[in-house]
Amino acid sequence: MRKRLFTPGPLTTTDSVRSALNVDWGSRDSAFSELTKRVRDRLTQLVNGADSHSTVLLQGAGTFAVEATLATLVGPSDTLLVLVNGEYGRRITTIAQRLGKSVQTLEFDELAPVPEADVAGYLKAHPEISHVALVQLETTTGVLNPYFDIAKTVANAGRALVLDAMSGFGCYPVDVQTLPCTAVIASSNKGLHGVPGIGFAIIDKAALSQSQGNCASLSLDLHDQWKGFENNGQWRFTPPTQCLAALDQAIEEFLADGGETGRRNRYDINAAMVLQRLQGLGFAPLIAPEHRSSVILTFGFPKGDWFNFPRLYDQLAKENLFLYPGKLTDQPSFRIGCIGALDRDDFEAMLTAFEHAVQDMTSMTDTLESDLILAAQTHSDLGRVQ
Amino acid sequence: MRKRLFTPGPLTTTDSVRSALNVDWGSRDSAFSELTKRVRDRLTQLVNGADSHSTVLLQGAGTFAVEATLATLVGPSDTLLVLVNGEYGRRITTIAQRLGKSVQTLEFDELAPVPEADVAGYLKAHPEISHVALVQLETTTGVLNPYFDIAKTVANAGRALVLDAMSGFGCYPVDVQTLPCTAVIASSNKGLHGVPGIGFAIIDKAALSQSQGNCASLSLDLHDQWKGFENNGQWRFTPPTQCLAALDQAIEEFLADGGETGRRNRYDINAAMVLQRLQGLGFAPLIAPEHRSSVILTFGFPKGDWFNFPRLYDQLAKENLFLYPGKLTDQPSFRIGCIGALDRDDFEAMLTAFEHAVQDMTSMTDTLESDLILAAQTHSDLGRVQ
Repeated sequence: MRKRLFTPGPLTTTDSVRSALNVDWGSRDSAFSELTKRVRDRLTQLVNGADSHSTVLLQGAGTFAVEATLATLVGPSDTLLVLVNGEYGRRITTIAQRLGKSVQTLEFDELAPVPEADVAGYLKAHPEISHVALVQLETTTGVLNPYFDIAKTVANAGRALVLDAMSGFGCYPVDVQTLPCTAVIASSNKGLHGVPGIGFAIIDKAALSQSQGNCASLSLDLHDQWKGFENNGQWRFTPPTQCLAALDQAIEEFLADGGETGRRNRYDINAAMVLQRLQGLGFAPLIAPEHRSSVILTFGFPKGDWFNFPRLYDQLAKENLFLYPGKLTDQPSFRIGCIGALDRDDFEAMLTAFEHAVQDMTSMTDTLESDLILAAQTHSDLGRVQ
Repeated sequence: MRKRLFTPGPLTTTDSVRSALNVDWGSRDSAFSELTKRVRDRLTQLVNGADSHSTVLLQGAGTFAVEATLATLVGPSDTLLVLVNGEYGRRITTIAQRLGKSVQTLEFDELAPVPEADVAGYLKAHPEISHVALVQLETTTGVLNPYFDIAKTVANAGRALVLDAMSGFGCYPVDVQTLPCTAVIASSNKGLHGVPGIGFAIIDKAALSQSQGNCASLSLDLHDQWKGFENNGQWRFTPPTQCLAALDQAIEEFLADGGETGRRNRYDINAAMVLQRLQGLGFAPLIAPEHRSSVILTFGFPKGDWFNFPRLYDQLAKENLFLYPGKLTDQPSFRIGCIGALDRDDFEAMLTAFEHAVQDMTSMTDTLESDLILAAQTHSDLGRVQ
């Protein structure tokens, strides 16, 4: 049974990545340590960090890696500034507050990028801020933040940047030699196209060295986790062995597919296809073209009471095609992820099913919206002959 | 490539459990929520806790679940007593100390069980103790602690027991109706024969309800994780979807195999076979028969300088047979795990390879120990005709 996930991750993986799950590795065996080292080294190289940074893998969800990074790097005399324009930025604030870190938050419009100019001014006025946290690409909306500009602003102000690159990693490039980042955080099950189970942070080694004792949690202490990897090549606590083998295979395929450029091209094509067809049905993307990424697209609900997202979701789910609910605080929305091992035929199948579901919904309501039905039918026909 | 792991977990899984890894689940889809609910309900039923307890699954290593349970249940006015007779007991102390919990430790001989009588006296003298943590089966040695007696002592003294049942779960039964346990903690990759990636705690619902706000970590807060499951059936943060599907399949097979009785019988047979053959080679188990479990066996190094554990390990690893190093603080040892989807033929293969390796080692040294060689050859021959 092949499920096709039009979601921001966990996403659809290749047969070969899932095949890599089919081995029981000895977690303390040298072959597994070599696997661990290869994954760590390749991730570090992906951000051009071999000379300065080290990748610390962590069991669990990406959020665990975000929390672990903040808990490890933000010390008792530090202050964290969180730049928020969505749910994942807000989560960083929650994490830092709960950990008892000194934290300040700048909250911006969810439908637009974090404005770089505001950051520069705020840092100038707040010399106590030592670390700045930014979500590279907000999964809430698909907004791509101006992480290049903000990274330079933070560096020029002499502060440390913690970049939550969860949804953009492997697509929107990070080069720590030109884009100063103390930490870049992501997970196995996003742009790298692995299965979920592993998060990681690629951290400046000088910052890691100075972070001993900051993290109260034994499990989430990335300083200790790093020392563990460096000392004997092993994970401190039982790793998800199969998930790591799948990540190793996924990275191999990522590189063979042209790395970030290959992924970016693939996602751009997918996103353009989704936009064209859904706009043809009368669905409006909520993010302006110049601000949106190709990783995930957010659409508002159309006008009228005919639209029923749960019904749409269920109808597609019956065909093993999975959409994603919205997460905006102030208006109903849904999302379509354009990432994962899905090609044109997969998107064609999803969009055709989407159009059929819209036809069913509009023909079932008393308040028929003829234009919408017409648009839906036309695009559905076009879809089939393309 | 089939690896055979004679380790305490991650362990060898069945082909059908690994096949269950081959699906990309939508982590917010109702089918995955049903999978999550089935696993949670079955684990709760396994300890006969349907009326009183609830299973909280957690991403990551078993140690994460141990830390999360302590962080969530031990409140600011509580005091934890840790009963230690090995590395995993010591780890509980470390976790609690780092979290800033009020913690006391009783440390006992590693080669013997925790003495129940000492616990009763200590609790009487220390009314400030609210929680007691015990490792059911110390993976350090394979010692099975008298968890029935200690649970009764703790309950009679009106304190809450946190049972780290990591290595014994699914083999040495826990019935929370007769064995009062506020929390029973284990993981996917031990006696249940799943793959690593998920820990869980089966917790008294009254204790869970009262634990809000205790845990500083967002990721490890089992109160919030429980509320998340109960509210919408979903994990708060991305779960290792494939690992959960494998755990679901593993539990299905566990029940079909006769549950704890089936596992116990299987492990007893495996352990008896290992003991007989290794004792025949002159290797002495370090734990007395009345105190050792069949999950993992600890052997001391034999006398003389001919024995080289790394060489033994490597020789077997070349045949995809994996032993486990020792973890005793005061003497060199190694361990052989008797759990996982391994049958008599697998143990025969491992023991024959072990005997060959010992023959090679003894014949290579200048200080030949003829008795040992003779014993090795005899048993190797017996092994082949059995």
